[in-house]
Amino acid sequence: MNSQAKIRVGVLGATGAVGQRFVQMLQGHPWFELSVLCASPRNTGKRYGDACNWLLRGDMPAHLRDWVLEEMAPGIDCQLVFSALPSGPARTVEAELAAAGYVVCSNASAYRYEPDVPLLIPEVNPEHIGLIDLQRRQRGWEGFIATNPNCSTTHLVSAIHPLHEAFGVTKIFVVTMQAVSGGGYTGVPSMDVIDNVIPYIGAEEEKMESREPQKLLGQFDGQAVQMADFVVSAHCNRVPVRNGHLAAVSVEFARRPSLEDVRRAWAEYEPLPQRMGLPSAPDEAILYREEADRPQPRMDRLAGSVPGMTTVVGRLRADPLLHVKFLTLGHNTIRGAAGGSLLNAELLAAQGYLGGQKQADSDQLPVTEPVLATVP
Amino acid sequence: MNSQAKIRVGVLGATGAVGQRFVQMLQGHPWFELSVLCASPRNTGKRYGDACNWLLRGDMPAHLRDWVLEEMAPGIDCQLVFSALPSGPARTVEAELAAAGYVVCSNASAYRYEPDVPLLIPEVNPEHIGLIDLQRRQRGWEGFIATNPNCSTTHLVSAIHPLHEAFGVTKIFVVTMQAVSGGGYTGVPSMDVIDNVIPYIGAEEEKMESREPQKLLGQFDGQAVQMADFVVSAHCNRVPVRNGHLAAVSVEFARRPSLEDVRRAWAEYEPLPQRMGLPSAPDEAILYREEADRPQPRMDRLAGSVPGMTTVVGRLRADPLLHVKFLTLGHNTIRGAAGGSLLNAELLAAQGYLGGQKQADSDQLPVTEPVLATVP
Amino acid sequence: MNSQAKIRVGVLGATGAVGQRFVQMLQGHPWFELSVLCASPRNTGKRYGDACNWLLRGDMPAHLRDWVLEEMAPGIDCQLVFSALPSGPARTVEAELAAAGYVVCSNASAYRYEPDVPLLIPEVNPEHIGLIDLQRRQRGWEGFIATNPNCSTTHLVSAIHPLHEAFGVTKIFVVTMQAVSGGGYTGVPSMDVIDNVIPYIGAEEEKMESREPQKLLGQFDGQAVQMADFVVSAHCNRVPVRNGHLAAVSVEFARRPSLEDVRRAWAEYEPLPQRMGLPSAPDEAILYREEADRPQPRMDRLAGSVPGMTTVVGRLRADPLLHVKFLTLGHNTIRGAAGGSLLNAELLAAQGYLGGQKQADSDQLPVTEPVLATVP
Amino acid sequence: MNSQAKIRVGVLGATGAVGQRFVQMLQGHPWFELSVLCASPRNTGKRYGDACNWLLRGDMPAHLRDWVLEEMAPGIDCQLVFSALPSGPARTVEAELAAAGYVVCSNASAYRYEPDVPLLIPEVNPEHIGLIDLQRRQRGWEGFIATNPNCSTTHLVSAIHPLHEAFGVTKIFVVTMQAVSGGGYTGVPSMDVIDNVIPYIGAEEEKMESREPQKLLGQFDGQAVQMADFVVSAHCNRVPVRNGHLAAVSVEFARRPSLEDVRRAWAEYEPLPQRMGLPSAPDEAILYREEADRPQPRMDRLAGSVPGMTTVVGRLRADPLLHVKFLTLGHNTIRGAAGGSLLNAELLAAQGYLGGQKQADSDQLPVTEPVLATVP
Repeated sequence: MNSQAKIRVGVLGATGAVGQRFVQMLQGHPWFELSVLCASPRNTGKRYGDACNWLLRGDMPAHLRDWVLEEMAPGIDCQLVFSALPSGPARTVEAELAAAGYVVCSNASAYRYEPDVPLLIPEVNPEHIGLIDLQRRQRGWEGFIATNPNCSTTHLVSAIHPLHEAFGVTKIFVVTMQAVSGGGYTGVPSMDVIDNVIPYIGAEEEKMESREPQKLLGQFDGQAVQMADFVVSAHCNRVPVRNGHLAAVSVEFARRPSLEDVRRAWAEYEPLPQRMGLPSAPDEAILYREEADRPQPRMDRLAGSVPGMTTVVGRLRADPLLHVKFLTLGHNTIRGAAGGSLLNAELLAAQGYLGGQKQADSDQLPVTEPVLATVP
Repeated sequence: MNSQAKIRVGVLGATGAVGQRFVQMLQGHPWFELSVLCASPRNTGKRYGDACNWLLRGDMPAHLRDWVLEEMAPGIDCQLVFSALPSGPARTVEAELAAAGYVVCSNASAYRYEPDVPLLIPEVNPEHIGLIDLQRRQRGWEGFIATNPNCSTTHLVSAIHPLHEAFGVTKIFVVTMQAVSGGGYTGVPSMDVIDNVIPYIGAEEEKMESREPQKLLGQFDGQAVQMADFVVSAHCNRVPVRNGHLAAVSVEFARRPSLEDVRRAWAEYEPLPQRMGLPSAPDEAILYREEADRPQPRMDRLAGSVPGMTTVVGRLRADPLLHVKFLTLGHNTIRGAAGGSLLNAELLAAQGYLGGQKQADSDQLPVTEPVLATVP
Repeated sequence: MNSQAKIRVGVLGATGAVGQRFVQMLQGHPWFELSVLCASPRNTGKRYGDACNWLLRGDMPAHLRDWVLEEMAPGIDCQLVFSALPSGPARTVEAELAAAGYVVCSNASAYRYEPDVPLLIPEVNPEHIGLIDLQRRQRGWEGFIATNPNCSTTHLVSAIHPLHEAFGVTKIFVVTMQAVSGGGYTGVPSMDVIDNVIPYIGAEEEKMESREPQKLLGQFDGQAVQMADFVVSAHCNRVPVRNGHLAAVSVEFARRPSLEDVRRAWAEYEPLPQRMGLPSAPDEAILYREEADRPQPRMDRLAGSVPGMTTVVGRLRADPLLHVKFLTLGHNTIRGAAGGSLLNAELLAAQGYLGGQKQADSDQLPVTEPVLATVP
Repeated sequence: MNSQAKIRVGVLGATGAVGQRFVQMLQGHPWFELSVLCASPRNTGKRYGDACNWLLRGDMPAHLRDWVLEEMAPGIDCQLVFSALPSGPARTVEAELAAAGYVVCSNASAYRYEPDVPLLIPEVNPEHIGLIDLQRRQRGWEGFIATNPNCSTTHLVSAIHPLHEAFGVTKIFVVTMQAVSGGGYTGVPSMDVIDNVIPYIGAEEEKMESREPQKLLGQFDGQAVQMADFVVSAHCNRVPVRNGHLAAVSVEFARRPSLEDVRRAWAEYEPLPQRMGLPSAPDEAILYREEADRPQPRMDRLAGSVPGMTTVVGRLRADPLLHVKFLTLGHNTIRGAAGGSLLNAELLAAQGYLGGQKQADSDQLPVTEPVLATVP
C-alpha cells in the first residue's frame, strides 16, 4: 500500500478515552490515514486541543490540536469510521453512516447482537465477515457495520479459541477483576475504588454469559452464525487497577485434554491475522507466562510485539471440578476496545471490503499471501 | 463470671499483626484477662512498647507499653495461650505448651490438619471439640491445641454451612480477592500491589480446595471427623485492599434449592454461639446485603454487632453451571484470624474446657441455656 | 436541654457526601432534631432511600429511608438548616432562607468572604458571631448565615491558632496532600488518582493564601473583622487517600518560640468549645503525636473523643528558613465540613442565637459555665 | 567507538531494584558492555535468573539468566562498576575496588559527602570531576569513586540549576511526595501506603537540607568544592505512587526574576551532556509543562527522549513569601538512581577518565565535539 492510496478514516467520539486510543493507534498507521475527528454536538466546532482532556501518557499528537471537531453525520471526509460512541448515540449514528456508504468499525454494543452484524475477533472468527453481504442486502445499506466484543469477552474468548478448536468447550467458569478504565474516564469514582473492590458491573455478566462468547465461537454457514453450544458462568468485579482485565477461568471440554495438550494448543496457535501479517496483529496472539504469579495487570497488560494487543495466559493447572483452570489477562482499552476495532478494519481492508478487490466468497479464507499483496 | 474468676491468657507472637489483634480484642474481655505477652527470642526481654510497631488504628493500650515480652515456654503465668505464630515456630512451641498443660488456641496452620486436633468455627462445627479428649489420650498431653481455619476458608465455610445443612453441598467454585493484611505486615510489598492484582498466594488454593472445608463440614462420630464429601475449585488472588477478603462463589447441592430457599436458610440461621451468647459472637453470624453492588471490602468488613466477626453475603443469583452464585466477604484478621481463635476459646470456656465443669460428652452439644449459666 | 425542647433542623443537599455526614452526625444529637431533608429539584419528592446512594460505612439510618425529600425554600419545618450545597445554588437558597428567618449554618463558600458573614471555627474565633447583628441590620434579614471554612484551611488555622495567640504568626508555608473526598463523590475519577498525585485543586490555594486564614484569625472590633496580617504560601495537591487532609507546614512568628514553647502552647490549649462542653467539641481540639512518622491520614483522621473533630499535629522541629515546621492532619468531611458547621450551630445555640436568651454583647465571650447551664 | 572497544562494566548489587535498572539500561549501550554481575555473599554463585526476582516491566534479558553471580571483590573482569549497594556494604566494597584500580560509579550514599569524592549531576557540576585527581592522590588509589545524589535531591537541584546560574538561589522551600520504589522493593509495606501518606523518610530531609544541594551547586576551585551558600527547608513524604518523585518548591534568589525570566532560563538551558550528546542525556534536561495540573507522577515520570532522564517542571507562579513557586517531577529509579550513575560514567568516559586520553585539566570543560570523537 503506498501512501497515496491510504484509506481515509474518521473517529466518532474522539474526545473520550477510547476515542483517544483510536487517535493514538492511528498515528503512523501504514494503511489508514486519520482525516476526521467527530464529537458529540456539545463539542462540535471546537478545536480538538480545547475539547479533549488527553488522558494517555505522552502528549496529544501536536498536529491534531487545531483540528476542528465535526458533526457525526454523512458528509464527513473519510471512507471508514471507528466508533467510540456510547450505545445510545451509536444506535442512530452508526446506522445513518452505514446507510450512507461508510464502513463502520464499532466498539459500541448497539449492533453487536444483531444476527446480520459480524461480532469479530480476527484471530477467532474472521469468516464471520461473510455476514456483511447479508447485512447490506437486508438493510439496503451502501456501507456496513462490523463490531468487536466487550473488553472482558475479548480476552476470554481469545484464550479459549484454540482450545475450543481442539477439544470443544462445553463449560466455562470465569471471574473477572477488571480495571477502572473499562468504566470510562469518569465512570468509577476514586471514592469507590480506593482500598476496595466493587463486585458489580452493570450488564457485564450477561454479555459474558450468553450474548457474546457463543456468537464469537459460532459457525457461519453462509447465511447466519449458528451459536456455539456451551454454558458460561461469570462473576464480574472492578478492582483498583488502571488498565488490564484479569480473569480466573475454569473450563470443561468435550474431549478432556492434558495440561500439555492445552499448552501445545496455545503454543502452536497461529491464526489468520498473524499469518496475514496485519499491521496491528501482534506476533503472538496468545502468550503463556511460566511464572507462578503471572500474568499480572501492571506487568503484562502491554505485553507483545504490538503493545496491548496480545492476550496473556498463565497458571495453567488441573481443575478439581472442570478440566483445567488458568488466568487470562489483556489490555481492555487497546485490544479490548480501540485496538480490536482497528484490527477488524485491517482484516476488512485485507479482504477487500474497503474498495480493493473484494474476495468473492469469504469461505475461501484464510487469505493467502498474494491476496494480501494486492490489498491497497 | 465475676472478675476475680477471669481466666488468665497469654498471646504468643504478640508483636505481629495478628498478635496485636489478639491484644486489642482482649481489652475489657468479660471472661479473659491478658496476663502475658510472648515474643520470639530476638524480642524477649524488651518492653512491648519498644518492640512492637502498633499497626491498628488507635493507640496501643497504654498500660501494656511497659510489659516485658516473655519467652514462649512453659512457666508463663496463664492458663490459655492464643497463638499468632508462623507455622514453623508454632509446630514446636504449641506442642510444648499443650504438653505442659496449657490450652492453646492457635491461628497457625501447624496442627490444623492433624486428625486429633479440632479445626473449629463455633457456628459450624462446635461438636468437633470432642476431638480434644482423643488428642490428650493419644499424645499424653495435659493441655491441648484447638485451631481455627485459614482466613479465606473461614468466611467461605461460614456462608456455606447453613446451606450445607439444608441442601447438601456437592460442588463449590470460588475465586477470592484477598486483602494484603492476610500476608502479614511486610508480606506484600507496595511495589507489587499498587495498580495491580497478584493472582497467586502460596498454598492458599490447596487449603481451600482439599484441606479445610471438608474437615470443617465433616461429621464427628465420637472418634474421628469423617471428611465431608464435596469438591472445591479455588483461584486465590491478592488485591490492593487493606482488610477484608471478598470471594465470588458458585455452588451445587444434592437438592437444588430455590433462591428463596437459600435466602431463608441464611435468614433463619441461628447457630450455637449466638444462642449461647458468647461474648465475641455477633448477633448475626451471616448478614445478607440487598444492594446490587455489595458486599464491598471497605464498606462491609466491619459489619455486625461485634465488628469484623460477621460474614457478609450478597448478590445471590442463579448460576448457569451450578445452582446458585453469590459473594462472601469477611474481615480476615478479625474473624479470619484473632477473632476466630478468641471465639473458639469462648466456646471452650463455655463448654467447661477451661477448668469449669467440663461436659462429659461433647455430643450433648448444642449446649442449652442452663449449661451456659453455670459457665464461669 | 430536655428532649421536648430540641431544636428542629434541616439539611440542604442531603443526598450528597457532605449532606450524608450531616445526617449521620445529627443522629442522636442532644440539642438538635433532624426534621427535614432537602434536595435539588431533580430529587424533590423522592424517598431519601431511593434518591441517596449512601456512601458512609454502616447503613443509612433506617427510619430516614421513607422520608420524602423537600424543596429548599421557606416553609420547611425547622428553625436551622445545615447547607451542604454547591456554591452556586447556595448563593440564592441560603439568602432566601436567611431572609425568611432561618438560621443557616453553611459549609458552602458562597458567603464566606462577605464582610458581615462570620467565618467560624468555634475554638478559634467564637467572638466573630458578633457579625450576625450587623448582617441582619444591613440585609434586613430575620435569620442569618454563619459559615465554616474550607476543609484545608480549617485544620491549618486550628493548629496555628494557639501559636498565633502566643507568638504572633507572620509567615506560613503550607503544602497540602488532600483526600479525594474533598472533591465530592464523583469529583476525582479513579483514572486520575491510581498510582498518581494531582498537584492542582481549583481555587484551593487562593482560599488558603488570602481569603480565609486572615479572616479567621482577624480581630472583631464590634463592627467588623480586621484581617490578620500575615502571609501564606500554599501548594495544594490531591493524593490517593479517601479521607483526611495532611499538610506540611512551616511558620515564622513575631516572637521566636522554642520547640518546647510550641509544644506547651498546644498542650495547654483549652479553647471555648471545650470549656463549654459543646456536644461535638472533642476533648482535645489539638492532639500532638510523638511518633516520628505521624500523623498519617488513615491512622489519625478519626482521632479524638468525637471522631474526626480533632486536629492532629506532629513532627515538630526547627525550620531552617522560618522558625518551626510540623505536620497537621484532620478529617476533611467531618471537622472540615459537616462537623465544622455542626459545631458552629452548637456555639450559636449555646450563645442564645437559636431562640434561647441571646447574649447582649458578644464581646463578653468566652462564655462561662453558668451561661452554658441556661442554654436550652 | 567501535564495538571491540566497548568498556567492560559490572553491576554491584545486581539483583535489587536499582541493580536491575542498571542491567536494563546497559542493554545495547553504545559505549559500555555488561560483563559482570555481582551480588551479596548469600547469592554469589547462583544463576542470575534464579537469584533475581525481576521487577521491571518486560522480561529479564534472556541471555543473562544463566550468568553466575560473582563476588564483589578485585578480580572481577571489568574496568568500571556501577554500585547499587546499600550504604553499609558500599563503604567497604567500593573502597576496595577503587583502591584496586576500578572506576566506581556509585548510587550509594557512603562516599557522597567526602570532600574528595565528586557528587555529580553531569548537567549541573561536571567540573567537579576534577576532585578525582585529589582523591587518587590523597588515598593512593589506582581507581576512584564518583557518586550521584539522592533521588529527591537530583530533580530538585536539576530544576534549580539554571535558575541558580542566572539569579543566585538564596532560599528553597521544598515538600516532596515520593514514590514507594525509593524505599526499595520491600521497603514500604502495602499495609502502610494503601489509602495513606507516610510523612517521614529516614535521613531524607537532612540530605536535602544540608548535605547535597550545597555541594552540587558549589564551586570547584581546583582543590576543593566550596559549598554554595543557600538555605533549604525540606519536608519529605511517601505517597501511594510506584515511581516518580513530585516536589512542591518555592525559591528566593539574590536577584528577583520575573516568571518570564524563569521560563526563559529553563527554555534556554542547554547543559554539557546535551551539547556533548552523551548517550543517556535526554534532548531536554528540563521540560516545562503548560497545563494547570502537571507534572503528575504517572503521566510524566517517563517523559523525555531518554525515558525517565528528564526533570519535568510546571505550575510556575509567584510565591507570596519567596519569589517563585513551581513543581518538579522526575523518575527516582532512573535519573534519580541508576540512570544518574550511568550518565556520570558517560561523562567520565567522554572526559577520558576511562582509559582514553584523559583531559589534563578539568577546567577546560565544557568539552568540545572533537574531544568526544576521540573517546573510546
